Amino acid sequence: MEVFNNINKMQEWSLQTRKQGNSIGLVPTMGYLHDGHLSLVEEAKKKCDKVVVSIFVNPLQFGQGEDFEEYPRDLSRDSSLLEAAGVDAIFAPSAREMYPTGFSSSVEVSGEITEKMCGASRPGHFKGVTTVCTKLFHACLPDMAFFGQKDAQQLLIIKKMVRELNFPLKIVPVPIVREEDGLALSSRNVYLEGVQRQEALVLIKALKQAEEQIRGGERDITRLIGAIKATIATSPQAKIDYVEILNGDNLSGLERIEGRVLIALAVKFGKTRLIDNLLVEV
Amino acid sequence: MEVFNNINKMQEWSLQTRKQGNSIGLVPTMGYLHDGHLSLVEEAKKKCDKVVVSIFVNPLQFGQGEDFEEYPRDLSRDSSLLEAAGVDAIFAPSAREMYPTGFSSSVEVSGEITEKMCGASRPGHFKGVTTVCTKLFHACLPDMAFFGQKDAQQLLIIKKMVRELNFPLKIVPVPIVREEDGLALSSRNVYLEGVQRQEALVLIKALKQAEEQIRGGERDITRLIGAIKATIATSPQAKIDYVEILNGDNLSGLERIEGRVLIALAVKFGKTRLIDNLLVEV
Repeated sequence: MEVFNNINKMQEWSLQTRKQGNSIGLVPTMGYLHDGHLSLVEEAKKKCDKVVVSIFVNPLQFGQGEDFEEYPRDLSRDSSLLEAAGVDAIFAPSAREMYPTGFSSSVEVSGEITEKMCGASRPGHFKGVTTVCTKLFHACLPDMAFFGQKDAQQLLIIKKMVRELNFPLKIVPVPIVREEDGLALSSRNVYLEGVQRQEALVLIKALKQAEEQIRGGERDITRLIGAIKATIATSPQAKIDYVEILNGDNLSGLERIEGRVLIALAVKFGKTRLIDNLLVEV
Repeated sequence: MEVFNNINKMQEWSLQTRKQGNSIGLVPTMGYLHDGHLSLVEEAKKKCDKVVVSIFVNPLQFGQGEDFEEYPRDLSRDSSLLEAAGVDAIFAPSAREMYPTGFSSSVEVSGEITEKMCGASRPGHFKGVTTVCTKLFHACLPDMAFFGQKDAQQLLIIKKMVRELNFPLKIVPVPIVREEDGLALSSRNVYLEGVQRQEALVLIKALKQAEEQIRGGERDITRLIGAIKATIATSPQAKIDYVEILNGDNLSGLERIEGRVLIALAVKFGKTRLIDNLLVEV
């Protein structure tokens, strides 16, 4: 397994790999890998000849007062996991390599798709995501890039960016991986203290209840959101950031439940902000 | 010679051409070709196996009240010229193909490099340029892209964007081509009416005088700019938009003449806005 810290070296490898007729699958991560990431790697290995995993905690996508400094990092454990998973190359640049002094370029998707949900709570977050993904795509030159459905809004924004800016690659969504009790895997789960881990199960419980209500015929969005909030409120530690039910393809608002619907939420437990979602096809 | 109006078709051709081991040179243009464009094509043919010329009058880079509607177009003449020049493919998409309904992605270089000169006179112009170039680069997948030195600021901004966002390609600058009497070639020269064509010669006259003064030892920027403005003022039709003397690599301000210096100006003759520049190495 190759490990690259340098953008030009990474790009040379990618150009060479493609020249030899191999397809490249990219799994962009911020490291501190869990089984969710490894399911992305598995999917990439199925679909592409060579797999690159990028590990980069991207300062641009963290706001002031967010957890950039504390975000968990363990490159040596990540490397072992990826070597065992049969990955061909790791791209792990420094922040200085990615954003040298004077850096002033950016890529942005504007409009309601970036303004709602995490876009409202985390100003500038998605501009940081689209900018870093552009750099990662150019350095690793993937035929396909694999993103988890857990970051549902990120996935839709990156798909829109790739489509509108004509990146020569395909975005492949991969389903959420959960703990046995239903908690969505996240590198941030390690922050959960004491009862918070148990209380965080209200998220999947509330989402599943909403799904069942929809399957049972409920079409009223206000009532569904009310029920989700009530379930979350049974956790004393939970502080809701948002609960939204939106068009699952473009995050536009819905009059009532129909088509492909995204039920998405962000909830804080102490300092730890968790997101989760379900897609329901009606 | 192939002609593509469709982005996906263009991209398929580009991927295929690269897969066959050919390098691609891209010459991005807004059409209505003159010998300046053809010198870019010539340079591309020298350096690359296959040459693509894009022809697209990009609405994003025109401001309100600018000449988007009137901008001269002649695709059939352009095609003949490019076929004769031995170009391999033309990419001529419609505005609807490039910017379908709901399009909301953008690429931007911020900071003084985009704020000065044409950036000050034409708000949003360079954001339109960097966005369209990103799309053209992804559709045509060039190893090298060729830009005229006449649009000096555009050239520096695109170089910065390519470097900072890690596009896997090289930007090649090509010297300004001039009429025998010194007027820089521009598709907008056709707008010049009556005495304006003759009076426009003050631009190259003023630039050359400044160059001579620098060669003669003048290092004071205020005096040099004063002299340039005085020469331009000898044309009754000329209205100065800007005259600048800046660092030729990044457009930062200079205390005095040293290093690689860009002398750049924009001047209106009636409704026609012309730009010109000289690079002087001290």
